[in-house]
Amino acid sequence: MNEKGRFEKDRLKIGVFDSGFGGLTVLRALIELLPDADSIYLGDTARLPYGSKSRETISRYAVSSARFIEEQGADLLVVACNTATALALDDIQAALPIPVIGVIGPGAEAARGVSAGGSVLVLATAATVSSSAYTKALHAVGLASYEKACPLLVPLVEEGWTEHPVTDEVIRIYLREALDAAPGTKTLLLGCTHYPLIEPAIRRVLAGLGHPLEIVDSARATAAATRRLIDEEFPEAGPSNSEPRRWFYATDSVEKFKRLGTSFLGQPLDEVRLVDLGG
Amino acid sequence: MNEKGRFEKDRLKIGVFDSGFGGLTVLRALIELLPDADSIYLGDTARLPYGSKSRETISRYAVSSARFIEEQGADLLVVACNTATALALDDIQAALPIPVIGVIGPGAEAARGVSAGGSVLVLATAATVSSSAYTKALHAVGLASYEKACPLLVPLVEEGWTEHPVTDEVIRIYLREALDAAPGTKTLLLGCTHYPLIEPAIRRVLAGLGHPLEIVDSARATAAATRRLIDEEFPEAGPSNSEPRRWFYATDSVEKFKRLGTSFLGQPLDEVRLVDLGG
Repeated sequence: MNEKGRFEKDRLKIGVFDSGFGGLTVLRALIELLPDADSIYLGDTARLPYGSKSRETISRYAVSSARFIEEQGADLLVVACNTATALALDDIQAALPIPVIGVIGPGAEAARGVSAGGSVLVLATAATVSSSAYTKALHAVGLASYEKACPLLVPLVEEGWTEHPVTDEVIRIYLREALDAAPGTKTLLLGCTHYPLIEPAIRRVLAGLGHPLEIVDSARATAAATRRLIDEEFPEAGPSNSEPRRWFYATDSVEKFKRLGTSFLGQPLDEVRLVDLGG
Repeated sequence: MNEKGRFEKDRLKIGVFDSGFGGLTVLRALIELLPDADSIYLGDTARLPYGSKSRETISRYAVSSARFIEEQGADLLVVACNTATALALDDIQAALPIPVIGVIGPGAEAARGVSAGGSVLVLATAATVSSSAYTKALHAVGLASYEKACPLLVPLVEEGWTEHPVTDEVIRIYLREALDAAPGTKTLLLGCTHYPLIEPAIRRVLAGLGHPLEIVDSARATAAATRRLIDEEFPEAGPSNSEPRRWFYATDSVEKFKRLGTSFLGQPLDEVRLVDLGG
């Protein structure tokens, strides 16, 4: 297959994959930066969360999800899920004939951009932390790091408690444990696409602890890295006169996806299609 | 197939199914009441949680899990998952040639046994509440009820925060909302197999609210109903001289299953086997 040939006839189509809704924050950043591109988004909501599961299971789910997106004609794939990037990026790249980019490399690059020395604290799911993928990526750009698993933050966001005293208290407990273990921390990297929705709460708690940190937005960093990838791989890509098209797929309830997805994408989702990936 | 014929040659084998570890509290009650029976337990850990997903997805997962247990030679199946019972008991019964019992009917019977009038408050997952299965089952035994979805309690138990101020606070928020909506409540039914692990916290919070309630243990009620079912369907079942055998299967990491399962079962799990049910 010739992606460039397809691109010249059609329009560039960016595939975005996440275990659920969180990756819509990455799509949102992509739309801001690349407003002309078509996009196809898949949330593997029937099998979420990935963050509490094993490498083998995460890889199996991620590869089948990525294959579905490629089969729908995506020219490149953004793995907008930290857990899938941490545990399965190599497997996805090996399985797909199109360029694949994850969120961890761009996140590490962004941390280097804002870092004024000191180490980087990464908040993430249990599976992401156990993979040490962020520690390796940050080490590769010359930064020390400490990773902290925060299993309750995703359920709290999904409960809608983004502005809630219980969420502040849970964040305080996790941050206090992490900052006790890594007192030289200067930068905070939100290593899960759910966490930007509680960034105001995180800032509030850090102020209360008297330990303000630079916060890295890996969604924007990933969108910027995707634009660079497109410039390299698809140099003939350019603006188009027609409105870009956006397809949304979910493996579980499309009603729930529409309802919860809106706050992550920052705009309504008109149509979401159900897809069965087995299981 | 003739289950009774198989039973006469072998020994009675009880199948127990849950989306994860919680059903081990039901197996624990079954072992106390039926210490001679063999058992086979499946935790569908690769696809948990069920409680936040749609009826269609839950039914698909539950039927494939139940079929696996039946194929391993179970003589009857206990669906030890409130969500799977609420959304998929009919589908499982239609799919399997062996007797199938759920936790909701026995739980409602147990509530009638302890109820001194007033209505029953059911704490459960979002999917269980949306099915109204408990309301129907309690209505059938003459009890009024109010169901309250508690999405954060399972993640808090899985984080190990069973004795933690945050958990007490979350329980207090959920109970206060429920008791405001249903002030005539006299009985509390724990409609999720994870919740018995925070029963001490629930009692403590109820005492603090000045609203003590009778708490119904549906794990024991389900074990008692299973014994009655066995007396009816397998009257020739009796004690055996050899040690009973217990098989444990999980669809995700067996190490995690062994580690977390011990606190639910109340004894160590020697061997857990990995099974791939697709997905």
